[in-house]
Order: sequence, then structure tokens, then C-alpha cells
Amino acid sequence: MKTVKVGINGYGVIGKRVADAVRLQPDMELVGVADIATDWRIKSVADSMTLFASTEEARKAMIAEGLQPEGTLDNLIERSDIIVDSTPKHVAAGNMTRYRAAGIKSIFQGGESHEMTGHSFVAQANYESALARDTTRVVSCNTTSIVRVLGALDSAGLLLRARGVLIRRATDPWESHLGGIMNTMVPEPTIPSHQGPDAQTILPGLDLVTIAAKGAHTQTHSHYWTLQLTRSTTRDEVLDALRAAPRIAFIRMSDGLVALNSTIELMRDLGRPRGDMWEVAVWEDLVTVLGDEAFLTYQVYNEAIVVPETIDAIRALTNLAPDAATSMRITDETLGMRKDFLRN
Amino acid sequence: MKTVKVGINGYGVIGKRVADAVRLQPDMELVGVADIATDWRIKSVADSMTLFASTEEARKAMIAEGLQPEGTLDNLIERSDIIVDSTPKHVAAGNMTRYRAAGIKSIFQGGESHEMTGHSFVAQANYESALARDTTRVVSCNTTSIVRVLGALDSAGLLLRARGVLIRRATDPWESHLGGIMNTMVPEPTIPSHQGPDAQTILPGLDLVTIAAKGAHTQTHSHYWTLQLTRSTTRDEVLDALRAAPRIAFIRMSDGLVALNSTIELMRDLGRPRGDMWEVAVWEDLVTVLGDEAFLTYQVYNEAIVVPETIDAIRALTNLAPDAATSMRITDETLGMRKDFLRN
Amino acid sequence: MKTVKVGINGYGVIGKRVADAVRLQPDMELVGVADIATDWRIKSVADSMTLFASTEEARKAMIAEGLQPEGTLDNLIERSDIIVDSTPKHVAAGNMTRYRAAGIKSIFQGGESHEMTGHSFVAQANYESALARDTTRVVSCNTTSIVRVLGALDSAGLLLRARGVLIRRATDPWESHLGGIMNTMVPEPTIPSHQGPDAQTILPGLDLVTIAAKGAHTQTHSHYWTLQLTRSTTRDEVLDALRAAPRIAFIRMSDGLVALNSTIELMRDLGRPRGDMWEVAVWEDLVTVLGDEAFLTYQVYNEAIVVPETIDAIRALTNLAPDAATSMRITDETLGMRKDFLRN
Amino acid sequence: MKTVKVGINGYGVIGKRVADAVRLQPDMELVGVADIATDWRIKSVADSMTLFASTEEARKAMIAEGLQPEGTLDNLIERSDIIVDSTPKHVAAGNMTRYRAAGIKSIFQGGESHEMTGHSFVAQANYESALARDTTRVVSCNTTSIVRVLGALDSAGLLLRARGVLIRRATDPWESHLGGIMNTMVPEPTIPSHQGPDAQTILPGLDLVTIAAKGAHTQTHSHYWTLQLTRSTTRDEVLDALRAAPRIAFIRMSDGLVALNSTIELMRDLGRPRGDMWEVAVWEDLVTVLGDEAFLTYQVYNEAIVVPETIDAIRALTNLAPDAATSMRITDETLGMRKDFLRN
Repeated sequence: MKTVKVGINGYGVIGKRVADAVRLQPDMELVGVADIATDWRIKSVADSMTLFASTEEARKAMIAEGLQPEGTLDNLIERSDIIVDSTPKHVAAGNMTRYRAAGIKSIFQGGESHEMTGHSFVAQANYESALARDTTRVVSCNTTSIVRVLGALDSAGLLLRARGVLIRRATDPWESHLGGIMNTMVPEPTIPSHQGPDAQTILPGLDLVTIAAKGAHTQTHSHYWTLQLTRSTTRDEVLDALRAAPRIAFIRMSDGLVALNSTIELMRDLGRPRGDMWEVAVWEDLVTVLGDEAFLTYQVYNEAIVVPETIDAIRALTNLAPDAATSMRITDETLGMRKDFLRN
Repeated sequence: MKTVKVGINGYGVIGKRVADAVRLQPDMELVGVADIATDWRIKSVADSMTLFASTEEARKAMIAEGLQPEGTLDNLIERSDIIVDSTPKHVAAGNMTRYRAAGIKSIFQGGESHEMTGHSFVAQANYESALARDTTRVVSCNTTSIVRVLGALDSAGLLLRARGVLIRRATDPWESHLGGIMNTMVPEPTIPSHQGPDAQTILPGLDLVTIAAKGAHTQTHSHYWTLQLTRSTTRDEVLDALRAAPRIAFIRMSDGLVALNSTIELMRDLGRPRGDMWEVAVWEDLVTVLGDEAFLTYQVYNEAIVVPETIDAIRALTNLAPDAATSMRITDETLGMRKDFLRN
Repeated sequence: MKTVKVGINGYGVIGKRVADAVRLQPDMELVGVADIATDWRIKSVADSMTLFASTEEARKAMIAEGLQPEGTLDNLIERSDIIVDSTPKHVAAGNMTRYRAAGIKSIFQGGESHEMTGHSFVAQANYESALARDTTRVVSCNTTSIVRVLGALDSAGLLLRARGVLIRRATDPWESHLGGIMNTMVPEPTIPSHQGPDAQTILPGLDLVTIAAKGAHTQTHSHYWTLQLTRSTTRDEVLDALRAAPRIAFIRMSDGLVALNSTIELMRDLGRPRGDMWEVAVWEDLVTVLGDEAFLTYQVYNEAIVVPETIDAIRALTNLAPDAATSMRITDETLGMRKDFLRN
Repeated sequence: MKTVKVGINGYGVIGKRVADAVRLQPDMELVGVADIATDWRIKSVADSMTLFASTEEARKAMIAEGLQPEGTLDNLIERSDIIVDSTPKHVAAGNMTRYRAAGIKSIFQGGESHEMTGHSFVAQANYESALARDTTRVVSCNTTSIVRVLGALDSAGLLLRARGVLIRRATDPWESHLGGIMNTMVPEPTIPSHQGPDAQTILPGLDLVTIAAKGAHTQTHSHYWTLQLTRSTTRDEVLDALRAAPRIAFIRMSDGLVALNSTIELMRDLGRPRGDMWEVAVWEDLVTVLGDEAFLTYQVYNEAIVVPETIDAIRALTNLAPDAATSMRITDETLGMRKDFLRN
């Protein structure tokens, strides 16, 4: 089997999860990870991963901390067929020319602009258009979830217009000092928020407006949708369309999954690595259809949901799999993705 | 001037604010407050209010704590023309027959059902229909805000359909042991949530669906609306309709009021008693009109917003003022209500 | 090798972790778990564990939910050599007579009183005294950590007197509706708090006073100690005593582990099941010695720290291992316990 | 009566409260306030206070926002006898030479170093030593509370050694974007923390070690003390010493004041401006004496506790009152300070 050599630049929330996922793939090899951190985040994996420093300065700092980087980002690039760049916003843009100059492929995260790569990616929606491209952008967690769920209803010919409210987690759970908000909510300073146009980079025909705000919690976003359907329909038809779509899993209030944190605990109980949930969790019993409108709520595990998309994007750019179905099947099996967490 | 004797049963979040507001009214006299608590909540006002015990058991407990209740609820009823019942849900229902039997008027809170009183009240919408009635229900904080804001657009002939997401505070700020949620959100277990039908008890023609969830904060709700207008219009027309309506005040992101807690601090800075905000605070610069749709976000200070409505309801039931405008003018002036917190 | 059949009654925060740990032991067999819940907490393991209903009522409820319990607690008792009872406080007490009547061993959790079992257990301190007993109580997470850390200094002859402040997490992360506190702290209503006397059930000679309060977070307790030493000593001597003791791991501010949540993320990064930390995490660089006083701070992962103790308690009661060292070595190896998370 | 002209530079959490307090004093006149902010924090007082811009740049920005500053800091200095500088840390140091050059007095906040002014101030401890000085520093909220409480026991000859744990609020309630921590605690990176030495700038003889950490809440610090007394004594003697001391008020668990947020609500109920508590609130029923040790817990309303000290410092530097007792009596009466919130 052909094997692609994958390097990861930026070992943060997304980078570390992509690294783990790459190692699960039969057709990929993890060359190593590059970062500028020298603390516990890197020390904890120093024995299990090949380490590179994103900069020469970082290389010296790593050595001063007793770490043994194999080299710098240049060396990682040399050894890799493709780089997944999960460095912070704005840093990534500067790296692009380096990847291009080295003649290797590259994948960026949703914090970058669509224009930077000229292509945005969600596996189920446009895998084939990324085949053999040099670069793509895996869209953000929020946008990925929107494309999965609304895309499913759109593909089923059901969706006319979508109006959503997105309540985002304020910051990631490990962050002590950055981005925390306390005992408040922070609305985005403009309506519409940027997620609508971002989803339209994948599904240009979608009539979509979003309002966003940050909530005072650290794990998972939740989205609340009002959907104008193309016609009056039944709740079952909406559920069937969602059930048929990939990477959506139903949860239910009636199973006691009544809040964001109960789903999070379920992931821990299921033995998921880091407690990750790659699926969009749609509350089945909250899906409501009134005439030609549908209403629904789902939960987005922002730390992990783009990981399978990134794996598929690697396959698309490197021609490892000819179509979305083939790639997604491998990805989903290796990760252990499910359609329902409590039923078979 | 005619003066109405007002008794308050239930000295909690709402009751204590109504008591303060009654004392500011030129045409009302506060007879006293009744409760079953014997702790700091009552001790802190023992010197400044005439105290009654809601039950005989509570009377003994109060005396044991060194408090000096004037009597029980029966005695408060005897001395009052009207009782504002702000006891917890389900307790209030049992009290109604006592008020009726004593031949006095009564006002209940939004936790009770519309059916219980047969009348629901928001001053600007239906004051006149409550004139000389025996009893009414001042609707909840969420519903009051909906009637004020959507009612304003409806009156202006602009509103065809409203779809809203309501993110509620989880519990009140003084509560240590009840109702707290931590680092999560809790969606209401049904869609639509009950606030839509509740608002329709006041504005029966409104086409309204709401989705609700609790957020991990203790002060103020926030509502996020998608409004289908009757026609394409300008943002200015929507703003004008809101500006013309009573008990709505604009706030602005551009003034640095960027989150729920900045507005709360502003109320403290303005010297508001308890930091209360009786107005619905609509973010002016988030009001967005796209063709025949409008989008807006506002903040509801749930602890206080129904206080002016309750004062007006007292006037309506007791015929103290002949119409909404007359009553609301007195209420708003005595409380110091504003149309804009930072501009004249 | 002799194998002990273990049943678990109460599949909650502790019970589910003990179940997982039992399955890792070469000398134990998990018979099954009993509970009264019928929701996601049970459905998520219905395929992987033999399920019993703690009551006949629960058995019917389970069947109604499509679960297939093997029977009730009586059946679990019949098949087991020992029951780990991790039911809620006060429920457990009622179960004791049933275990005794059936002639099997039993282990209770720290919520129960010392008097109930007549024996309290922390492996490193008093394993041998539990050999062949009928029953014991594994003390609470807070007390276990105190015995490990202060016991280490006491064994080294260094500790004269300990005064500690314990800031507890308010409720467990999955709990949406119970025990949450928001934007506050809640001091225990008495000083000293109960953890001092509780630790003295294991180490009766310890001169120990604790003050406790709940903080507004959901994961891990933190303890802050002022220790009167038996003599002036060096910081190195204190560190050596801690390093030599079992089930204590050092963490360091200088490694970027600057807050409770960074350690929690580290556990996720290390691939720990459910992100568990069984060790007491002592901040090495906060250990301070000033003359004959020492000051230190550590973090207690309350959901998991008693799991290894419970495994050892099973061995002690059933004579599976003759001494603490033998049992603890097996436990620690199977769980993957460490002395330092970032260094070898 | 002699009247002192007071200018305030820095209209933040402390500055705005000092401004309000100055206006309550019979012997002070508020000249105006200077700041660099131009948003709601300033707009909300533009009608009620004379406004200056701390810098020329800020003056232009204020005018651009429709504000009408009277001038810059230079103009405020010209008109003032004394400036209370409550600008952020490090900004204040640069201002000192300007105040000196203008020949006026100045007061700085606890964020500055003792060395900067050469004098640190807590009214009850060292008022007289500040008489006619050019400048002083009002120590921080934590340190002020320590000097009040431990100073009281020290003055009574009871205190030999104090070991404390200080759990600080993470950030102020109005802050959305700075300093928030979520679902965690953050220990100070060194033991001892700086509050011990800081208190010793006022009470040099105190044997004092503190450990500090931030908790996940926004209002009020809480301190937990272990006190080695000079001799075995009774609880009553400790309580008497605390009761006799100024600016300490007792609260009680038995009155239902069981958490930081119940005290905060009580302040709102008492009609305190902004809900402020200037007193240190000591839980009377948690004061515990065991032989020659005492244990106690109190709550520090960090936003307001230094306000009365600042007012007294103005009097000391300007010779408005000859001794602490005279100044504190005026301050305490004008603010409405209490010895007990629920009893007379």
C-alpha cells in the first residue's frame, strides 16, 4: 500500500489530535511534529514522537529544556510529503510559501482565510474537488458541523433557508490565562457572524445567516437552528435525512443526555481518546417539525470534530483514495466513529 | 390622592424589588411583607419593613430568631387592598382562594399559569383589559421582554414571524445551593419552549417559536431573534419602532458594552438600586436588516424587569390610573427608567 | 493463580472506574455491576459488562428501557466473593447486612463512617491490618491524599503538626443539576472540617487540623498546607521523603503546569483512561521550607484517586497478596501509575 | 471648615469608588477625574463629574466621542491639593514626579511598591505616621484586610504567628476579556506569596506567611487562617478583640450567610452603592479556638475595601484630621459602615 509521510507543524489542540489520528491510518506515516513550545505540552510526548522545532530559536530553547529535537521545520519539510499546519492564525499564512517552495502539499486550519488556499474542505461535501490539489483549508469546527448537518438536509432537497444561533465555548479547557470569560456571555460584535459565509465556501447555494455568542463554558459549542424547508414534511423525513448522513450521531434527552456535559462524560465512558467526539451530536428528540419549518439543536466538540476531515484532506491531496466514500470509511473505522452512541 | 394599601407575600428576588418600588409610588402604601424565611434575607429588613409570617409555623420560627412579625398572612390580608404574591411556583396557587375569600385583589407572577388568573399582563400591551379585575398574572421576565420588543415591531406593522433563541441565566446570583450548573449549557427538553405560547397570552396574533437553553452564568438572559418582516424595510425603520416603544433602552458595542457583564456593571455605575435594569437592553448596533428579515439581540435583567409591570398591574386592578400611559409615566419616573443609558 | 470474583454495586463516578481497574488485574474477575440507573450511564456499557439491577424495581425499569439485566443485587452477591459498594451515602449502610448475611466480603467508600466497618483503609498505611477482614472502608479522596502525603513525612520522622486548607471541587463534571455552585465559594460550616479526624482513623497520631471550602470548579481538589516539622531541615529532605513515598507524583510550575486545568489536560495527553490521575500531584517547585516549617500545595483528582486503594483493599480482604508492597506493585503497574509525568 | 481639593487620576474599579466617597466627605471637594477611557465607563458619568483626560491623546479621543474634557491631567493637577492615583500598575510610578514637581500631595494604590512612596498606609495602624507627608501608598485589598484582622489580634497581645491561605477572585465582574479563568484554580507561582511581606510594611513585627491562589469566581477574596496565639485563650477573648477593632463586621453561617455570594446579595439588599462592602466580613461562628491556636475565615470585598483607607489617607497627608480616630469616625459615618450587618 502506498504510504504518505505526514508532518505536523503546530502541536496544539488540533495538531496533537491529528498526530494521533495519522498514526492510526494504514496508509499514512507520522514523520514528526514541530512546535515552539518547550513545556509540558511537548515534554509529555518527547518519548513517543519525533520532535522538531518550528524555529531555530525554539530549537535552542528545546535543547535548553532537555528536549532533543531532530531539527527544525525545514528538516520536517524535507522528510514529509505533506504538512498539516495547525499553527495559530496568521502564523500559518507565512508558512505557506515554504511548503510550496519545497514542493510539498499542505493543509491549513479554519482560522485561515479561504482565499489563502483557494479551496476549503469538508470531506462529505467536496472531497473530489481537492484531489491532487497542492493545498486546502479544513474549515473550522463550527463550519464543519454546519456543512455536515445542513448539507445533509440540503442534499435531501429539504432545505430552503437556515437561520442559526451559535453559542461557542469561551476557551479551551486547558487554557488558564487566555480567553476566559466569567459569569457572562459575549455576543459577536456583528450580525451575521462569519460562519455563514464560511459555510458558503463549501456549499455556495446555502441561504444561511448565523448569530454567534460566547458562553461561559470551556467545552463544546451548541447550535440552535430554525430551518425553512422547501415544503411541509414529516419529522421522520428530516430524521431520515440526518440519519443517512455521515458523521452525525443522535443523542437523546430521554437517555438522560440533557446537557453539554453529560455528552462529554459519555465520551469519557466510551473510552474515547482524550474524551473526543468527532461526530456532530444532534438531539434526536429535540428535532421538531412544524409545517414547513424544522428546529434542531446539536453539540459540536470543537477540539476534535475537524480531525477526521483533516485525515480525509490528506488523502485527497495525495490521491490516497479516489473518492470521499473510500477515504471516509477508512477514517471512520480507524477512529471508531459511530452513528449512535447508545444503540447499534 | 387615593392611596392603595399593598401587601407582598413572598420576599424573594421579585418580592423585595416590588416592595422597594411600591414605596416609591405616590399613590401606594406598603403595608408589609410576608415570608417564611427567618435568615439574613428577612433580618436585613426587619428594621425597615413591617413583617408578617406567611404561616403560623413561620411566625414561631421568626420569633425564635428574634424577629417580631406583626402577625401572619391573614393579618396582612386584612390590612391590604391588594396582595402581590411572589411566593414560589405552586405555593401561589394555593393562596389565591384566600385572597378571593377576603375580597381583595391579587397579582401573581409568571411562574403561575395563565389559566389560574384568566388574565396575563404586560402594561404596554393590555393595561386597560385589567382595569378593575380581581386578579392578574404579570408574565415572566422572558415573556415580558418578548412582548415589549416584538410587540413594538408588531404595533408598527412590521412583524410577520419571529423565531428566537433564549439563553437563560442558570440561577440567581445569591443562590449557592440550588439550580447551579457548571461549565455547561442545558437546553430545554422540548422545542418549542414555553415562552412562545406564554407571549401569545398577551399578543395572541404573534407567530412565534422559541428555543431555550440555560447558560453557565448567573445574571441576565439574552435573546437572539430572527424576524420575518411584513416587507423589505430599512434598518432605520426597525430602530425607530424600537426607539418609540416604552421600556426598551439601546446599548451599543461601540460604547464598549460588549458583553452581559459590562451592562451589569453600567447599572452599578449608574447607581441603580441593587444594580437593577428594568428596561430591555437592545444592542442598537447589532440590529441588522437584510431585505425582509431583521436580526437582533437583547439582554433581559431577569431579577428586575417585571417590577414596573407589577406596579402598573397594581394600578390597573385598583383603578388607580385609567390607562397604561398614565400609570407607566408615574412608574417610569419614580424608578428612573431610561431610553438610553449613555445619551440624553 | 487464585482469582477473586468481584461484584460492584453502584456504577457511578467511583464504581465505573473500579470496574475498569478490576478488569486490568491478573488476579481478579469482574462478575458484573449493579445499579438503579437506566439511562446513558448504563446503556453505554450494556454491551461490555454483565449488568444487574440493584433493586427489583430497577430491574423492571431496566427491562422497560431495553436493557437486559442478569438479575438483581442478590444474584450479583451469589456470584461474587466480594462486593465493592459504591452506592451513594446512606444507601451503602443498608447493604452491609446483606453482604454479611451472604458470607461475602465487602468494601465501602469514604462517604460512610469509620464505625460502620470498624476499619478504614489506605494501602500504604495499613494494608496488613485489613488482611482477611470481612469488610473495610476506603477513605475519601481528600483523606487518601492526606494520608499519602502527610503519612510520607510522618514516616520520615519529619512531621510534628499539620494545618491545611482544602479547596474542593463543587460537583463532578458530568452533573448538570446537582450540587453546582456558580461564581462563589462555599466554606464548610464548621472548623475543623471532618477530614482531619477522618485521616486520624488511619494515622491516629497525626496532629492535624483542616479548614475546607468548595470552589467554583468541577475537577480536582487542591490542598494548601502549613507543616510544623520536628526540626529545622532542608527542602531537599522534604522532597526526598515525598519522592520516596508511593502514589505521589511531582508536577512543576516551571514545566508550565500552572493551574488545576493544565494538569487535567496533561492526563488527557498521556492517554489516561477518562483522563484519570490516580497519583497525588505535588507541585515540586512550590514545596518551601522555612526553618522548621514546610509549605506545600497539591492537586487531588477526586474522581480517581481512591481506585488503586480499592483494588488493594480487595487484595487485602481476600488475602490475594500478603503485604502492601506486593499488592501495590501489581496495582500500580496495571494502571500505569507514575512518579513523575514528564521525566523517567 | 478647611476643605481639600481632591483630583482622581484613573477612573477604574477603585477610582470611581473613591470619587463617590470623596463627594460624601464634608471636608473634601472633588475637583474631577482623569482617565484615558472614552467608552461607557466615562460616558456614564460625563454629566455628573468634571472630566479630564490623562493624556493629550486621550483628550482628543474623548472629544471625538462627544465628551467634553476640561483639560488634561496637568489641568487637574493645577486645580488639586492632592491626587489619588488609581491608574494601572506601572503607569502610576511615572506620574509621581509630575505630582511632586507641581508641589501637590499624592496617594497611590497597593499595586505599587512600598519603596516608591516610602510609606504604606492602613488607617487604624499608622495614620499618624502619614501626617503631612507628601505621599503614601494605600496597600492592597488583601493586605488591608490582613492588617485589620491580624492587627486587631496583635494589638490585643494575642498573636504570635499567622499562616494564611488566600483564595483570590480571578478578575473583576465587569471584565469580559482580561484575566478570566474558567473551571480551574491557579496557585501563585511562589510560596510565600507577596501579601505577607506587604503587610509587614505596616506591621513589621508580624510573623506571617501566606499562600495564595486564584479561584474561578469574580467577586471577593476569602482568607483562611491558622493563628498561633501567644497563649491558650478562650474563643470569647478572640471574638472580643475582633469586635473591638474597626472596620471588621461579623457575619454568621447561622444567619444563612453560607457563601461568598450570599454576603454579596446582602450588600445589595442593604442598599449599598454598587453593592459595596468596605468592612472585612469575619464569619463569627467559624472562629475556632483550640488551645493556643485560633482558626478563622473572612471575606474581602476587593473592589471597595480600600476606599475608606484612601479617604483617611487624604486626611492624613493634608492634615485634615489630627489622628486616626477622628478621621475614621467621619469616614465611617459618611459611608455608613457597620460592625454587624444584621444586628444593632
